[in-house]
Amino acid sequence: MAHERELKKREENELEFGRIVAFSDGVFSIAITLLVLAIGVDNKEVLQVGLGQALLNQHEALLAYAISFAVIGRFWVIHHGFFGEVKAFDSRLIALNMLYLGWIVLIPFSSQVLGEYGGQLPAVVLYSANLTGVVLIGQWMRWDAHQAGLTERDEMTGREDLISSLFIAGVFLLSIVVALWDASVAPFTWFLLFIEGRGHFVERFTHRIWG
Amino acid sequence: MAHERELKKREENELEFGRIVAFSDGVFSIAITLLVLAIGVDNKEVLQVGLGQALLNQHEALLAYAISFAVIGRFWVIHHGFFGEVKAFDSRLIALNMLYLGWIVLIPFSSQVLGEYGGQLPAVVLYSANLTGVVLIGQWMRWDAHQAGLTERDEMTGREDLISSLFIAGVFLLSIVVALWDASVAPFTWFLLFIEGRGHFVERFTHRIWG
Amino acid sequence: MAHERELKKREENELEFGRIVAFSDGVFSIAITLLVLAIGVDNKEVLQVGLGQALLNQHEALLAYAISFAVIGRFWVIHHGFFGEVKAFDSRLIALNMLYLGWIVLIPFSSQVLGEYGGQLPAVVLYSANLTGVVLIGQWMRWDAHQAGLTERDEMTGREDLISSLFIAGVFLLSIVVALWDASVAPFTWFLLFIEGRGHFVERFTHRIWG
Amino acid sequence: MAHERELKKREENELEFGRIVAFSDGVFSIAITLLVLAIGVDNKEVLQVGLGQALLNQHEALLAYAISFAVIGRFWVIHHGFFGEVKAFDSRLIALNMLYLGWIVLIPFSSQVLGEYGGQLPAVVLYSANLTGVVLIGQWMRWDAHQAGLTERDEMTGREDLISSLFIAGVFLLSIVVALWDASVAPFTWFLLFIEGRGHFVERFTHRIWG
Repeated sequence: MAHERELKKREENELEFGRIVAFSDGVFSIAITLLVLAIGVDNKEVLQVGLGQALLNQHEALLAYAISFAVIGRFWVIHHGFFGEVKAFDSRLIALNMLYLGWIVLIPFSSQVLGEYGGQLPAVVLYSANLTGVVLIGQWMRWDAHQAGLTERDEMTGREDLISSLFIAGVFLLSIVVALWDASVAPFTWFLLFIEGRGHFVERFTHRIWG
Repeated sequence: MAHERELKKREENELEFGRIVAFSDGVFSIAITLLVLAIGVDNKEVLQVGLGQALLNQHEALLAYAISFAVIGRFWVIHHGFFGEVKAFDSRLIALNMLYLGWIVLIPFSSQVLGEYGGQLPAVVLYSANLTGVVLIGQWMRWDAHQAGLTERDEMTGREDLISSLFIAGVFLLSIVVALWDASVAPFTWFLLFIEGRGHFVERFTHRIWG
Repeated sequence: MAHERELKKREENELEFGRIVAFSDGVFSIAITLLVLAIGVDNKEVLQVGLGQALLNQHEALLAYAISFAVIGRFWVIHHGFFGEVKAFDSRLIALNMLYLGWIVLIPFSSQVLGEYGGQLPAVVLYSANLTGVVLIGQWMRWDAHQAGLTERDEMTGREDLISSLFIAGVFLLSIVVALWDASVAPFTWFLLFIEGRGHFVERFTHRIWG
Repeated sequence: MAHERELKKREENELEFGRIVAFSDGVFSIAITLLVLAIGVDNKEVLQVGLGQALLNQHEALLAYAISFAVIGRFWVIHHGFFGEVKAFDSRLIALNMLYLGWIVLIPFSSQVLGEYGGQLPAVVLYSANLTGVVLIGQWMRWDAHQAGLTERDEMTGREDLISSLFIAGVFLLSIVVALWDASVAPFTWFLLFIEGRGHFVERFTHRIWG
């Protein structure tokens, strides 16, 4: 019931709006930095196989780190873009943003499990579920803000964002299917997310269908 | 002795005021993000019961995470609202804010204990005591700032805040009573904090009594 | 050689100056929040003595947390006050500030050692040395900035700050002497730092001698 | 293909630009603060050799902390200087900055390995490779931004930065060579990075060759 919502204009509440953004940025930057805590060599392992080998054994943790850093960074860019379009806010947007951040902060946990047990199905499912959750809640937040007239985005950008979000969610669901067949291959499907020129592809695709 | 306090106007000390807010936001965002460190699967447990089961065994830690994320997020929103009303500050407000933050930062610890030993009385008491401490110190800070003329809030908002704070503290005290009977049920009483329409209820309640 | 230093005026480089302050605030807020990681109950201890007793056994860790939170908070207030007076900056101030922050960030480590081994001389010496280091480097930074004409502070404030810093350093040195006699008593001497009315005492003292 | 890039002017997008800087500062300040987690005494070690000796045994961890704090601090200053020159940004700069931060955040891990296994070749190689990666990606980001016309830097500063970066990378490569001979000596070559007057030396050197 958008007509009941008590909106605050952004330009009249610059400090309050700035705090929402600053809080979100803080959470994003801490979550992305905590990823490094999942990498580390075990003292006992070093005694058994030597430091060089123990470091090489961290390659899966490093891969999970690289993927998760890129993923959180990407979500930050999308969040950044969305809040750049927000012209008014209310307590509901703050609550949805908090819910969104609650799913972002889980990524270091899912990522650590993925780094340690990457070849196992539950690790892939957990990670994919976490990221799909982020994408869906993010889409919900955008849709809700758009409905309530909080944003000034044109239809075009909204459509692109939706496709982009569905593309991301689709890749993760695909990876679960792949994981059922071979869990250690699944993480590689995520590289689809970083195809060079994906942006242009999605754009052309959009034009063809709606445009 | 409010008349002795050396006040600084907010508009004349925007940078200094901004730093207090930024520091508080930093502490809030780190505390809320550290919550994720309480979730994690134990290597030995995975070897015994498998990764899937080990992850399912984390449901209590995940519940504690969800509750604490919502709670810290809620406290941030209240803090955010309060500092939006602050028009002047002094060293006493800074000190009380620091004391308040000191109790906020304890939440990741209480939350971890709750997640691991949720069914035990001391865990519920610790968590409830921590959150009640936050609420009471927050109320003290607001009351003190109001007495010293640091805020521009109208009586209405202040009254709502007081009721809201007492409501939160009341729920936590109730949960301790419930915990004496069955500690594993107690955390569910906290969902009272998130009743849909609670705001409206409190508002109507306020109107009936004072209004 | 202050005349060789290449100064940047604060008002002409607001963004750059803001970043120094924001970076410092970030470091302070993370260091103060990491203190909570030193508190935690050990699973084995809980099995042996029960959760309630295990939590009570954390009273030394909680005391160390409370002291360190107050100490870092106090340093933040002093840092905050100092940078409020800074009107120009150069690479030397940035370097000294970095050195200062490097000692601030050690406090969570010293504090953890203090919380676990509070009754032992090396823990008290480590903690006191750490905090004395912070105070002395802070004083160096202020003195250096004053010499280079980076601040606009009047003599009075500078004198008060010097006395305040020497008072803090003095209390820590005193606590080491006390620790040589009984290490478990030493932390209590730190409460001298929070004497009600200390500010007024130092002020009157200053007036009597210089004023 | 710089001519295809969609640039946003900084002065027209102050909030968006501010978020990139704030996010980077957040990551830097967290990474530099996490360094402290690598220092800590082991309970068993304390029981065997006493607290004093156990603390003294942390001297390598403390050395690694000091080096890494100085290194991250130095990178922050360089990053700070670079973004002070940026007058426009696009998604490519954001992506390169994210890649850069991804290598910065690895430093706490490399530093911890260095602190624990400082006398071993793989630790030195890991640390040097990490820092060389930071330097090279940083240089790539600057070069790319310059090519796309995002910065207003004069040639002189760019040349100095390049030499400074190559100097840093050179020192790390040298340290690997030294480590092949004696790994425990290698970290000391890093002190070359902090030679008093290095700036002036590099400047004179630059003048002689290009100037």
